[in-house]
Amino acid sequence: MTDSGPVDLLVEGTLVDVHTGQLADRAIAVDDGEIVGFGAVPAMRTIEAEYVAPGLIDAHMHVEASMVTIHQYGDAVVPHGVTAVVHDPHEIANVLGPDGVRDFCADADRTPLKARMTVPSSVPASKRQDTGGAVDSAAVDELLDSDDAIALGEVMELDAVLALDDEIHEKIASARERGLPVDGHVPGVTGPELQRLARFLDTDHESVELAEARAKADAGFHVYLREGSTSKNLDALVDLVETVDPRQLALCTDERTVVDLLDDGGVNTAVRKAIELGVDPVTAVQMATVNVAEVYDLPFGRIEPGAPADMVLLSALDSWTVEHVLVDGVVDPTEDTPPATGSALPTDTVTFDRIAPSDLAIEHSGPGPVTVRAASAVGSFRTERLTGSVPVEERDGTSVLCGNSDDDVLPMAVIERHGGPGNVGRGFVHNLGLDRGAVGTTVAHDAHNCVVAGVTHDAMARVANELREFGGGLCVFDPESEDCTTLPLPIAGLLSEGTTAETAAAFEAVSGAADAIGLSVPGGIMELSYLALEVIPTYRLTNNGLVDVSEGSFVDVVVE
Amino acid sequence: MTDSGPVDLLVEGTLVDVHTGQLADRAIAVDDGEIVGFGAVPAMRTIEAEYVAPGLIDAHMHVEASMVTIHQYGDAVVPHGVTAVVHDPHEIANVLGPDGVRDFCADADRTPLKARMTVPSSVPASKRQDTGGAVDSAAVDELLDSDDAIALGEVMELDAVLALDDEIHEKIASARERGLPVDGHVPGVTGPELQRLARFLDTDHESVELAEARAKADAGFHVYLREGSTSKNLDALVDLVETVDPRQLALCTDERTVVDLLDDGGVNTAVRKAIELGVDPVTAVQMATVNVAEVYDLPFGRIEPGAPADMVLLSALDSWTVEHVLVDGVVDPTEDTPPATGSALPTDTVTFDRIAPSDLAIEHSGPGPVTVRAASAVGSFRTERLTGSVPVEERDGTSVLCGNSDDDVLPMAVIERHGGPGNVGRGFVHNLGLDRGAVGTTVAHDAHNCVVAGVTHDAMARVANELREFGGGLCVFDPESEDCTTLPLPIAGLLSEGTTAETAAAFEAVSGAADAIGLSVPGGIMELSYLALEVIPTYRLTNNGLVDVSEGSFVDVVVE
Repeated sequence: MTDSGPVDLLVEGTLVDVHTGQLADRAIAVDDGEIVGFGAVPAMRTIEAEYVAPGLIDAHMHVEASMVTIHQYGDAVVPHGVTAVVHDPHEIANVLGPDGVRDFCADADRTPLKARMTVPSSVPASKRQDTGGAVDSAAVDELLDSDDAIALGEVMELDAVLALDDEIHEKIASARERGLPVDGHVPGVTGPELQRLARFLDTDHESVELAEARAKADAGFHVYLREGSTSKNLDALVDLVETVDPRQLALCTDERTVVDLLDDGGVNTAVRKAIELGVDPVTAVQMATVNVAEVYDLPFGRIEPGAPADMVLLSALDSWTVEHVLVDGVVDPTEDTPPATGSALPTDTVTFDRIAPSDLAIEHSGPGPVTVRAASAVGSFRTERLTGSVPVEERDGTSVLCGNSDDDVLPMAVIERHGGPGNVGRGFVHNLGLDRGAVGTTVAHDAHNCVVAGVTHDAMARVANELREFGGGLCVFDPESEDCTTLPLPIAGLLSEGTTAETAAAFEAVSGAADAIGLSVPGGIMELSYLALEVIPTYRLTNNGLVDVSEGSFVDVVVE
Repeated sequence: MTDSGPVDLLVEGTLVDVHTGQLADRAIAVDDGEIVGFGAVPAMRTIEAEYVAPGLIDAHMHVEASMVTIHQYGDAVVPHGVTAVVHDPHEIANVLGPDGVRDFCADADRTPLKARMTVPSSVPASKRQDTGGAVDSAAVDELLDSDDAIALGEVMELDAVLALDDEIHEKIASARERGLPVDGHVPGVTGPELQRLARFLDTDHESVELAEARAKADAGFHVYLREGSTSKNLDALVDLVETVDPRQLALCTDERTVVDLLDDGGVNTAVRKAIELGVDPVTAVQMATVNVAEVYDLPFGRIEPGAPADMVLLSALDSWTVEHVLVDGVVDPTEDTPPATGSALPTDTVTFDRIAPSDLAIEHSGPGPVTVRAASAVGSFRTERLTGSVPVEERDGTSVLCGNSDDDVLPMAVIERHGGPGNVGRGFVHNLGLDRGAVGTTVAHDAHNCVVAGVTHDAMARVANELREFGGGLCVFDPESEDCTTLPLPIAGLLSEGTTAETAAAFEAVSGAADAIGLSVPGGIMELSYLALEVIPTYRLTNNGLVDVSEGSFVDVVVE
């Protein structure tokens, strides 16, 4: 330890002091990566800024939602002043289990972004679908010992929590024994159930209405106001800042699409929007720095002597106009450095055999048309139950149920892709709007099997085999051009090997191709990713068949 | 884990919600020691209260200041709604080292009070005086692994911190490695030194002026506003609540005399005074609950589902009028239970041989009067340098320096009592005001040797031997009655074996006896406890001789 000579850097500006809750002119001395004091001292370099804020922390997010590696994510958000994320590698865990979680954390060494993990608590999401990985209570206990584990990740199995199921409560106990918090996921829960859940869960980021959020705050939850690419809840929830002590509130994104990530970064957008909505700028910054740091006992998120020099230098606070970002005292650490490539994660996770069209079709011996159950995709990842009518046609000597384009009831399939049974769930989807061709993805919450849907089984098989070749991704087949447009996601079938810019461009190309063949469901091609999510209502298709989630059981596709 | 049938207890009242920062009507369900939810549910017992607040946490205190065991302390404060303390067993450590610290923590099992320890960081306070115990960096590292260790205790060796001394920085590193905070002790420090200290220290409780406290808040310290028996800083500092985010502030006592403890409890008095001074009651309660819990990552200090049921039921909030107290769901746990007695700590720590008057006198061969250096006790534990004149008299055939009652320059001695060299430091003290007799104590910060002062060496020896017989305590000898009045403190020479009431009564008796023989220094007999504290200016007497603290060296008593 030495302590003489000029410091490395002096930053002068108006400090957003998240401790005192005020703006204050300060000269901030930085040496050896650390903030060493306030006050003008001799320095090797001086930077003047209008405003200086602590590096932002996203209170809850999933890197996988952006379909890039964590190092690409870091390169995208650090220049916007996001220097840390609290992430839950829930999707990777579903594909690769605890080893994948470890590999994902290893990737975090390739970025200046400080990634802190909440250990996935609810993998698999159900027993109805085959996943690649599972994280049981023993694995949770082990993962909680990781250097970067700071909490148990969002607990989704609320029924199991309420039923005092041993397995989930062992996971919760593992966190509690270490003095770590437990993230919750309690959308729309109120009343006595909320109280019972509040005993075990410390945070929630799922509120969509003010009264719901207030009830959670009253129940002792740390309430995270979510402003992601899809779920934008700040407008509805922002008044909470006026009615409860804002120290209990934080900002998070939950998920950012790769296009939004490239255009505008991460949780910085939530801070900016909070300010636009009238939140005091210092309070807004507190909600994405010290408030998060206190929940998870993080050593950053404040500008004070002794803290790591993670700072954002801004020319304007209200518009969050960033001039420079420091992480551990390094100025603009992602600038001039070629983004790290590669990944510790595997690229061979799509294992099914080559698909023939007949693998995706439901055989039917009688005459058509036949009444079938279909998941109607109504947008926002919701489905409704639909009963439709589809024709029976002969294909290669076999009678199969085919799509009914007039009513927009089209075949869909979910192919197990993790080296398990390799079986195919076959069913129907309504409301995609496809005129021709097929779409498919290996990003399919939570089991991330391969989901394909299309006008013909031939087109669907083409897409499935394309995804098989690439090791996963998003794919659109247009029979007019005879071309597939693909975003390859070879890493775990979830993440791109490219940069954020490359991935965003490829995503735009795939979306454009999907538009061209008529895909018109509100969420676009990403809506496909939720058609197999058998833990939220109503009909969802798994590799093991169609589930009526509200009934909690498999149902036949054909209505007898 | 079970979850059926009526809960143990329902508490209905206006909740002081330290999360939302508001008052709110609530029914609080308690089962199996835990708060299990808000909302009326069937209960075995219902208690109605006007107000319900979380049990208070004293952010920084030394139990030893009250001269009772921690279980007696708990019995005294729990009925006032103080259910937890963050204590620093600094005095015990000086007498008994790490083993004593462990024994002290073991005693905490005998009280419902939740005692959390900050590990003494600065023992011994200096190398100039012999102590009974030392806590080096290896011992700190070991003690930080204790179940109840939550921080490194107040770091007093500021010069060593600034000089980047290895030993103190190893102690700080041991806390940092565990993610634990480091308490500071930075009275009056400002400017660049404050900034440099702020790198290493997280809290401070020593501010006496508003500007000083503000500077510490600006430097990132958690600022504790102290309101103890002796140091009452709330009046001067309370405006800080208006000018910085109060989440950064907390309340502490540092020390409570046994009389104040008996009369009025602990940090509850600081909460009440803050409210009297105009602090919003919810804010005042936050400053003694959740704010402390967040600094030390404590699992209590909030009323929320999942938290232990540590609650105070009040008939009036502003006056802090307590009706019932719950700790882990037990109602009024100290009522109807005879206070625990005994202690894991030893009672044989006063080891010096029987003292003869000549042991306490300075021999002098020349004629009198002689000019001597004397510590002038001016109150508030401060001393000033004084040069006085004392006579030379013959005692048992030897010429010795005696007291000069006209000028109130009286002999004083510090007897090593920890089984070390057993030597005696001899000197003079001014301004005690004694007319006759002698006073003595084994409570003598920080080394806690035996300090005696008196009009004659005979009286001083009488006191020293009385303390030797009792294994320590406070003692007054009045030659008119020929009686000693003693508060025995046999546990480590610091703590009483009696109840708080018995100890307070004995303390009052000793104080009265001291008054009767003329002791008139402002702090009364406790002023004696600081005359050997060789780390604060100016003259202090140690068992190894007189120290001029500002000069940092021993000086001769006799001015040549």
